[in-house]
Amino acid sequence: MRRITTLATAACLLALPAMAQPAANDRLATAAQLRDGALAGNKAWGLLTNLTDTVGQRLAGSEAEARGRAWAKAELQKLGLVNIREEAFPLTAWERGQASATLVGSNHQLALTALGTSGATPAGGITAPVTCFASLAAFRAAPENQVKGRIVFIDHRMTVTQDGSSYGVNGAVRRAAPALGAQRGAVAVLIRSLGTDYHRNPHTGGTVFPAGVSPIPALALALPDAELLARRCAAGQVAMQLLATPISRPGQSANVSAEIPGSVPGEVVVLGGHLDSWDQGQGVFDDGAGVVITMAAAAAIKDHVTRTGLAPRRTIRVVLWGAEEFGLIGSRAYAVAHSQENIVLAGESDAGADRIFTFDSKVAETGLPLFAEMAEVLAPLGIDAARTNKAGGGPDVGPLAAVGAGIIDLGQDMTRYFNVHHTPDDTLDKVDRKQLDQNVAAWTAAIWLAATDDRPLRTK
Amino acid sequence: MRRITTLATAACLLALPAMAQPAANDRLATAAQLRDGALAGNKAWGLLTNLTDTVGQRLAGSEAEARGRAWAKAELQKLGLVNIREEAFPLTAWERGQASATLVGSNHQLALTALGTSGATPAGGITAPVTCFASLAAFRAAPENQVKGRIVFIDHRMTVTQDGSSYGVNGAVRRAAPALGAQRGAVAVLIRSLGTDYHRNPHTGGTVFPAGVSPIPALALALPDAELLARRCAAGQVAMQLLATPISRPGQSANVSAEIPGSVPGEVVVLGGHLDSWDQGQGVFDDGAGVVITMAAAAAIKDHVTRTGLAPRRTIRVVLWGAEEFGLIGSRAYAVAHSQENIVLAGESDAGADRIFTFDSKVAETGLPLFAEMAEVLAPLGIDAARTNKAGGGPDVGPLAAVGAGIIDLGQDMTRYFNVHHTPDDTLDKVDRKQLDQNVAAWTAAIWLAATDDRPLRTK
Repeated sequence: MRRITTLATAACLLALPAMAQPAANDRLATAAQLRDGALAGNKAWGLLTNLTDTVGQRLAGSEAEARGRAWAKAELQKLGLVNIREEAFPLTAWERGQASATLVGSNHQLALTALGTSGATPAGGITAPVTCFASLAAFRAAPENQVKGRIVFIDHRMTVTQDGSSYGVNGAVRRAAPALGAQRGAVAVLIRSLGTDYHRNPHTGGTVFPAGVSPIPALALALPDAELLARRCAAGQVAMQLLATPISRPGQSANVSAEIPGSVPGEVVVLGGHLDSWDQGQGVFDDGAGVVITMAAAAAIKDHVTRTGLAPRRTIRVVLWGAEEFGLIGSRAYAVAHSQENIVLAGESDAGADRIFTFDSKVAETGLPLFAEMAEVLAPLGIDAARTNKAGGGPDVGPLAAVGAGIIDLGQDMTRYFNVHHTPDDTLDKVDRKQLDQNVAAWTAAIWLAATDDRPLRTK
Repeated sequence: MRRITTLATAACLLALPAMAQPAANDRLATAAQLRDGALAGNKAWGLLTNLTDTVGQRLAGSEAEARGRAWAKAELQKLGLVNIREEAFPLTAWERGQASATLVGSNHQLALTALGTSGATPAGGITAPVTCFASLAAFRAAPENQVKGRIVFIDHRMTVTQDGSSYGVNGAVRRAAPALGAQRGAVAVLIRSLGTDYHRNPHTGGTVFPAGVSPIPALALALPDAELLARRCAAGQVAMQLLATPISRPGQSANVSAEIPGSVPGEVVVLGGHLDSWDQGQGVFDDGAGVVITMAAAAAIKDHVTRTGLAPRRTIRVVLWGAEEFGLIGSRAYAVAHSQENIVLAGESDAGADRIFTFDSKVAETGLPLFAEMAEVLAPLGIDAARTNKAGGGPDVGPLAAVGAGIIDLGQDMTRYFNVHHTPDDTLDKVDRKQLDQNVAAWTAAIWLAATDDRPLRTK
């Protein structure tokens, strides 16, 4: 009987006027209700366990990433989202291979790993003298004889910042130093990992060899190994035997998207994460968490729509980008393909699984009252009011912002993010479920408010 | 002039009546002075950096361990100790080789490493179904069809304990399970690392295959990987492709010792650590720290003797054992070779580099007043009074205790010891210099008191 009653009730709810729009004065109350519901229980942890245990790492362009897309489409369908799409794009795929480094005349096997797009050594490896630099600036200033024919090591270091800003400040060492080394005749460039943990788990990450610059081996040392190498350099001449065997090949990736249709066609609110990950860990903090946070937020809203029959005004679209780690390849392709759409606001969760503590916007002046509403609804989650209207947004929304989409950035606590990101340590055990749930609660409320709003948000 | 004065003063001091014994009422005051001097500055950090940067890991029976002995003898000589000896003993040396494990039908490459004395798989590896057990007891109770022809995984877990006791309680899983698996027809035994950190750095450590039991592959999984495997087992059937390539061969190791001669020949106080280490890290916490703590304590006492001309009554002997990690091979040989000596007290530093917070003794009743004196001198270092007269001592003093030597055990805070011990993470950056110095201060004072005492301490 109970079952029949429940089904009957559900049928009644589904029979309510479809696609009706919530009354404006209900918006904040409903957002608060969705927030509290998500905080009490949502689908993120189950999805995250399922994704990372059954699919595992999802390197861009790999069969593993394709398995991730198949998983996402199946799960989005189970969640009741519609218009599920996969939009393919080409890329140069890259595989890590092996890497080893020994200091000549010592027992030391250094813990290091190749940076994405790194070139390979000859099959037997190379042996060369090492020049150690304390910073990227010191490397830039060095004379040719300290670089040419040598292995260059740059001990440039980042620090722990709650907002992750040190990664931005110091990112140039990873992005630019290998190409600079190649142009100056270095036989390889090693960097101290862009990371903040002291484990023998080096941080990979993409580097860039511009057109016309042939890739050389480019690798990152774990922090204990970087500091050992720096001490050996300080003590005298150091030579290294280095082997790295990455390969590049033509490949393909894709973006996956799915929707909760809005009652007024044409206006779209995008939220998402990136499905690809690095291959050393299982892509949990980066960015399995963002994928499942946005999926769980969408699921909470979809459940509400189903239950009440009240659809949001704007279409909510979950986008799970591909190939973020190789330079936003998926999101650039996405922005081009969707440049004619009216994407009014876009947000990405791509900073781990720890709690959101602040938020920023980048929208038209007309949209700022929406963020005042959000501040009110997000405050009980311990989230401070919008700090600026200059949000950068998650990396994959940058290309959409460049063509005029408004941006919402829910700022996560990144204090421990760079302990695990891009390392073998990016595994499920690192996730604090309560903080994961707080993310879902915040995104659910924020996206609901944005999707039920009608104020212009686009910046152009 | 200054230099000449100093030299002249030193010459005068050296001309004082050699080997005179300190007056009894000076003992505590001198111990306190030695303590404070060592706390303010000592040689431990410099020695530790030098040992682990220039020698690195020191696997028992390897050329690396021999380099460690050469380093130790040279440094002990520089510190002014005499009667420097190297006493060789044979052992079956073992080399780790490579290890890899993949869950069939998945992307998961598990982080694991061989246990010391592990056997090898065939060259191409093995593929077999996995049985997961939550504990050693569950494995012992399992029927044959869950073991024979299968890879056995035991998820037996240890917890963090300040005194390290969980390692003792749970150690049987590593020592006994592989042999039990071999006897019951398992093709390999995997254990959850005996460790407390969640990094992809598995903990190695010795296991034991008794005479007549042929070694099978025996490996430890990093905690994130152990938990992943347990989840996959809970979800259904799991098969694993496993490769492990360790080898065993006849080898040799040795103990190194050096002395500060006492004024009354025949009675010896031993302090030491073990020179060998596992090969994954650099042997810093285990047991480079113990080696340098005891060397620096001896150096502080030697400097005092040189400065004052007042030798302790008993001979102080630093012993740096070899091959501790393969079952106390060096210290067993040492106890046999020195069974006729009057070693009145022995202590070992082998619990990392963190602070001492308590101490225990195991001595004749007649010796207990000595430990009351120690309590007084050690209290300002934040060390609680002797808890028991049932000390086990560091592992390498066990064989000496078995033949009657008294034992002193300065108990270190091991809260984070099992995060790094036996892992690739056992590197210099883990050391807190202030805590390292506190160890030297405590050992210097304790050994001074023991060596200037005349109460009987031996238990038989």
